[in-house]
Amino acid sequence: MTRAELIRQIKLKRSFLCIGLDTDLTKIPQHLLDDEDPIYSFNKAIIEATEDLCVAYKPNIAFYECYGVRGWQSLQKTWQALPKDCLGIADAKRGDIGNTSRMYAQAFFDENVSGLGFDALTIAPYMGHDSVTPFLTTEGKWAVVLALTSNPGSMDFQNFKNAEGVQLFEYVLDKVSNWGSIENTMFVVGATRGDAFIKVREHAPDHFLLVPGVGAQGGSLADVCRYGMNRDCGLLVNSTRAVIYASSGRDFAEKAREEALKLQQEMEAELQKAGII
Amino acid sequence: MTRAELIRQIKLKRSFLCIGLDTDLTKIPQHLLDDEDPIYSFNKAIIEATEDLCVAYKPNIAFYECYGVRGWQSLQKTWQALPKDCLGIADAKRGDIGNTSRMYAQAFFDENVSGLGFDALTIAPYMGHDSVTPFLTTEGKWAVVLALTSNPGSMDFQNFKNAEGVQLFEYVLDKVSNWGSIENTMFVVGATRGDAFIKVREHAPDHFLLVPGVGAQGGSLADVCRYGMNRDCGLLVNSTRAVIYASSGRDFAEKAREEALKLQQEMEAELQKAGII
Repeated sequence: MTRAELIRQIKLKRSFLCIGLDTDLTKIPQHLLDDEDPIYSFNKAIIEATEDLCVAYKPNIAFYECYGVRGWQSLQKTWQALPKDCLGIADAKRGDIGNTSRMYAQAFFDENVSGLGFDALTIAPYMGHDSVTPFLTTEGKWAVVLALTSNPGSMDFQNFKNAEGVQLFEYVLDKVSNWGSIENTMFVVGATRGDAFIKVREHAPDHFLLVPGVGAQGGSLADVCRYGMNRDCGLLVNSTRAVIYASSGRDFAEKAREEALKLQQEMEAELQKAGII
Repeated sequence: MTRAELIRQIKLKRSFLCIGLDTDLTKIPQHLLDDEDPIYSFNKAIIEATEDLCVAYKPNIAFYECYGVRGWQSLQKTWQALPKDCLGIADAKRGDIGNTSRMYAQAFFDENVSGLGFDALTIAPYMGHDSVTPFLTTEGKWAVVLALTSNPGSMDFQNFKNAEGVQLFEYVLDKVSNWGSIENTMFVVGATRGDAFIKVREHAPDHFLLVPGVGAQGGSLADVCRYGMNRDCGLLVNSTRAVIYASSGRDFAEKAREEALKLQQEMEAELQKAGII
């Protein structure tokens, strides 16, 4: 999906919601466990209940890979069930030397070889340019590169500072911005400290940011928008647990829709406030 | 495999060779393409021809994942074919927030859930402690954390320097060393600049290092040993292309053995020189 199309979808759906599909067999409604593929059954119901309210879905690959071959079958079926008007983000945190990153690009982007044709893949930047650029070669495909994450360990290395006071995550933003463009590169920026977006926007004013950490992890949507939104919106805000585990009963899809709707309405208000819609 | 057992195998086999299984359908002998699972056929033949000469095998997960479900089937069969006296390293460069890294640990370490029970997994450290520690909880399982890699992009971030002149890879060595122990943590250190091992050994004198980059990538085994070997050997030196693609004909396994034997003999001489055997 191109940047222009993503922005069109945001305006059309009045939403910049991304729904995380971290589908955990110990957390999904227990009646689904009798299905042939409970992970897929769950995802399909969640997608059908929410697809008009969000612009992206983000399966967390670890939650599939942990079941080996079976898990990859669930992932493939889940990818096939993603609506064409939503960005499909494989949250896989991949990244390796050039010839290996090319293989990962094939794994997640090239449906004809791997059976998966996601639009975007999350990437860890530690290995540098040849680990990132293989994901930037096809129009409409995105590298979503880790910059400032929302987890407890994010401050171990991401704020490592050089003599000029530049933190590693800022340096990552600067470097990676030059390897691609705003048409094929996004950054992961956690929502747990809204004002960190001020610094992020100094380095990447025009890029889309994928923002985890709103809701269950404690981030505030209002703060993220206040400091992080740009004239094209420039945000994909992810929610996982608050939406997909809104209920553990037979009404799980309906309750997921209710939670997604609340988020969509808050986002609509933010888009209006910013004059984007 | 525990550290003591690994050292025992190194002394027994007089080798610290790790063979990379970056098995590429465009590079393996073409007569194998008629097999039901050419990747597995190739790997099985390579393993059978070399298992007495090496102490570790390292499938590069991207080369399996790029074929989706089918690729994971080849990976599972390959893992099953690994000899019990060799360390099985999944070269996957994973790493994510705590609950997700736990899923990746299950994917690669917990045979009962995923069908894969590797001994070790390569990890990207960018997300910090909660992305690494879930791999350190089971005796005999290893996190092999990226420190200083051998690819062109390694100098983009890994030598980012703080005000005291400490480079990021050194800081990674210091921090990560404290999260685990020499019993469950190794570091990836590329062989392309042998003298970089001097600095690495200042920060991690006792850890095992997984060393790619010898051979095809230009690193020298003598330099790696000179600067990187410790009293327990402390090195697993990987070779991939020079061994597994030594011939593209029907004699590929035999030629792979010849190349592995050359490396084993060089390593034996180094172990003798150091008084380890």
